[in-house]
Amino acid sequence: MTDCPFCAIVHSGAPATRVFEDERTVAFLDIRPLARGHTLVVPRAHASGLHELTGDDAAAVFATAQRLAAAMRSGPIAADGVHLVVNDGRAAMQTVFHAHMHVVPRHRGDKISLAAGIATRRRHDAEQAGADVRAGLPPE
Amino acid sequence: MTDCPFCAIVHSGAPATRVFEDERTVAFLDIRPLARGHTLVVPRAHASGLHELTGDDAAAVFATAQRLAAAMRSGPIAADGVHLVVNDGRAAMQTVFHAHMHVVPRHRGDKISLAAGIATRRRHDAEQAGADVRAGLPPE
Repeated sequence: MTDCPFCAIVHSGAPATRVFEDERTVAFLDIRPLARGHTLVVPRAHASGLHELTGDDAAAVFATAQRLAAAMRSGPIAADGVHLVVNDGRAAMQTVFHAHMHVVPRHRGDKISLAAGIATRRRHDAEQAGADVRAGLPPE
Repeated sequence: MTDCPFCAIVHSGAPATRVFEDERTVAFLDIRPLARGHTLVVPRAHASGLHELTGDDAAAVFATAQRLAAAMRSGPIAADGVHLVVNDGRAAMQTVFHAHMHVVPRHRGDKISLAAGIATRRRHDAEQAGADVRAGLPPE
């Protein structure tokens, strides 16, 4: 884990603009923000991705993200909306393999093009697609 | 809440392709999928957005999303990566005001353009941006 940049921020004082921390999580600004105030929430405990993130840490990450979303709406960031995003795996654009949640403030009329994907929406065979998702679940 | 389409699915048997449910959450396919298997996780209890989502329900939604992400990777959906996304507020493209988390499977080389926003990335005044996020947080 010595080469994990987020562990370096959490544990070794690597430079970051920290905005919040608590027992389980640390939040700091993304160095390549999609919008001003774009923040990352990470668990203090290293987890490379969702599959390694414990339930307690997942809950804590989400709770911190909710807190920051509220702060972005009520404070000077004055967000009109907020995205919470976890990109898990290289195919989903994960670039740092310490699980993290993006908190991205939005404003009416801003030019963030996260919406671009909507143009690709198309219907699929819902019955079979649902069966295929269910088939990956472990037996109850 | 009688006009909430997700409450109708959860409580009134409105049609949906359900893929998972547990005590606190229900998961069903998005009717406008970004990718085959694109699933929404909702709390059974109505919450219009993140500000109304209780900690227990938030944790349960995230836990269900993690479970589905694992299922999409290990099962026939054969995802190489997964996005978890909450769009909170109209400015963040929320269209159904019952809080929900998208679970979107990704495959290497697919054409989903969620990445488009990256082109808009630019640096901001990190110190002031960080201070502005912190300023919205309630006093400890």
